Amino acid sequence: MDHNKGMDDGALFVMDGIAASHDGMAPSGRKKFRKKNNDDINISELAKQVLAGSRLHLSKAITLLESTNKYHKEKGQELLQELLPHTGNSIRVGITGVPGAGKSTFIEAFGGKLCDMGHRVAVLAIDPSSSLTGGSILGDKTRMEELTRNPRAFIRPSPSAGTLGGVHKKSRETMLLCEAAGYDIILIETVGVGQSETIVRGMVDFFLLLVLTGAGDELQGMKKGIMELADTIVVHKADGDNVRSAKKTVAEYKQFIHFLQQATPGWTTQSMAVSSYENKGLDKVWDTILQFKEIGEESNYWYNRRNEQTTEWFRSMITDHLIDSFYGVPERKQQVKSLEEQILLGRLTVTQGVDQLFNKE
Amino acid sequence: MDHNKGMDDGALFVMDGIAASHDGMAPSGRKKFRKKNNDDINISELAKQVLAGSRLHLSKAITLLESTNKYHKEKGQELLQELLPHTGNSIRVGITGVPGAGKSTFIEAFGGKLCDMGHRVAVLAIDPSSSLTGGSILGDKTRMEELTRNPRAFIRPSPSAGTLGGVHKKSRETMLLCEAAGYDIILIETVGVGQSETIVRGMVDFFLLLVLTGAGDELQGMKKGIMELADTIVVHKADGDNVRSAKKTVAEYKQFIHFLQQATPGWTTQSMAVSSYENKGLDKVWDTILQFKEIGEESNYWYNRRNEQTTEWFRSMITDHLIDSFYGVPERKQQVKSLEEQILLGRLTVTQGVDQLFNKE
Repeated sequence: MDHNKGMDDGALFVMDGIAASHDGMAPSGRKKFRKKNNDDINISELAKQVLAGSRLHLSKAITLLESTNKYHKEKGQELLQELLPHTGNSIRVGITGVPGAGKSTFIEAFGGKLCDMGHRVAVLAIDPSSSLTGGSILGDKTRMEELTRNPRAFIRPSPSAGTLGGVHKKSRETMLLCEAAGYDIILIETVGVGQSETIVRGMVDFFLLLVLTGAGDELQGMKKGIMELADTIVVHKADGDNVRSAKKTVAEYKQFIHFLQQATPGWTTQSMAVSSYENKGLDKVWDTILQFKEIGEESNYWYNRRNEQTTEWFRSMITDHLIDSFYGVPERKQQVKSLEEQILLGRLTVTQGVDQLFNKE
Repeated sequence: MDHNKGMDDGALFVMDGIAASHDGMAPSGRKKFRKKNNDDINISELAKQVLAGSRLHLSKAITLLESTNKYHKEKGQELLQELLPHTGNSIRVGITGVPGAGKSTFIEAFGGKLCDMGHRVAVLAIDPSSSLTGGSILGDKTRMEELTRNPRAFIRPSPSAGTLGGVHKKSRETMLLCEAAGYDIILIETVGVGQSETIVRGMVDFFLLLVLTGAGDELQGMKKGIMELADTIVVHKADGDNVRSAKKTVAEYKQFIHFLQQATPGWTTQSMAVSSYENKGLDKVWDTILQFKEIGEESNYWYNRRNEQTTEWFRSMITDHLIDSFYGVPERKQQVKSLEEQILLGRLTVTQGVDQLFNKE
């Protein structure tokens, strides 16, 4: 064994424990130290601790999988492989919504309720534009304050920067680790910006869309494609003076839903009014999810979709690898750009451009 | 020069002239002969004939570009390159619709009207599921009978079998050839089956969706995503007893349109009733297209979209090439499948599967 290996490549092993998962903002809340030797990472021991439900070790495991260090990455995969038989036993719920729809408030209230019922809830975020410091979940410290303190909940912000594909990969692996750690409900929040919803839809069993009252007005600003991803549309903030118009909006959505492609075969997209503030309608959301699961399990669609999602994940990672390797060659981007210019100027056909790129002339 | 080259690789040069373009069904309608020498293909001469508007040579040029023979492909690209400066001077219109919406009848009537106005109209089809023999355009010989005989029109069925990407590439190149041959309006028909609409949307300036009366009922069976690709929704077969309900349907669509993402920035999707049978509303469709073009040219969106489409075409061909080369290696598909099985059985992580594939263990 080469005991200097760890020092040589300057590997930094971050102890990203409870403090970090509770407060992504404060570097002082983390303990960082250089391991004398990378081989110190005892995967069996770490797996045992994760399976035992140690939040500290779960955080450590996630950090290992998110690492860009080659040795850590391999160790992380080894760990994940060991934990695979213990994954899959959760209900995976995606949550999205227009800005201001109150996603964090909803997750705080809904997650808290589920914890009270005895569940263990992991909250993840997919938001490639944010990072630990500018994160949508932990950027605003006042958000999800109670859930953050709840011992039955585990909150993990979006992996810092990177491509959507990269964030996707990391979040999928984080989800599996959380399942191995005994979290039986995974809530994955995503901001309503284009592609990320499709990616989250490809990771979850059930997809929830949060909207506000006044469907007519709201609908105009919203990408309609998102509605066709949703298994349930929650008209949020149905409290106080809003109750009446929320009920009206629910009715409007119910009508509108019939004009949409259903997100899940065999399931009619639902619409319901919810007040996280007054704790109203959250039970109904949960009952709906359970009903959805029951129907899906009966028809086997639940399992088939998961297998399809995994296969699709594998296929898209292969494609990503091919594209990354191709564009990863120095000068390649410039080469493509210059061919692109010639094509746009009408000097080269697209096919000739591709042929030149792959030297097939 | 190797005069045996053409014979050696068994290259077949198909004289795919007017007869073939008029009747894709009958092999007897074509003249096929082996060229003694591939070098007989005189690109400058062919380009001159295409530019002069010879339908025979246009067909020949398209066949050259569709060929899988290496030498023919290169010659075809050479030809296309020579013709590039003469392309782009058309209005490219995509046409889709639910089965039974009367796409062929519409194209026959609309194309005929445009020819009467002095335009030259090329009709192409994108339908990877069909081929010359089972084609959606020429499969039923009674379709577009008049337009087929119109000397100002040129009809070309979908390239025979192949991937959607392949059909896409060929159709884009065919479109450019038609433009060089002086066709100033290109109508691209696609069947309403999923992906092909998105591909056609990526090739055209203006996208038309044909629907039938009874929006409420129709809407339920239709992929809503398609509506968000359309610049105009034509309620077709607005004749006889249908007129009243067609007007009602147009009104319903007009209302519904506001809930949709607009296909073209700066343009509100239109809805109108048309009877191809009674020749009603076709003028309005054409006026709408002209208005669309005017607005687009003013805002430069018309040109910007075309450049984006070309760039996107180039990028997607690069990706296709990477994927094809990867899966083109013998045994690769089996290798991927076997890794997939191990992943689904929980024996391997997805990342490990990818690493094994690229030997990065």
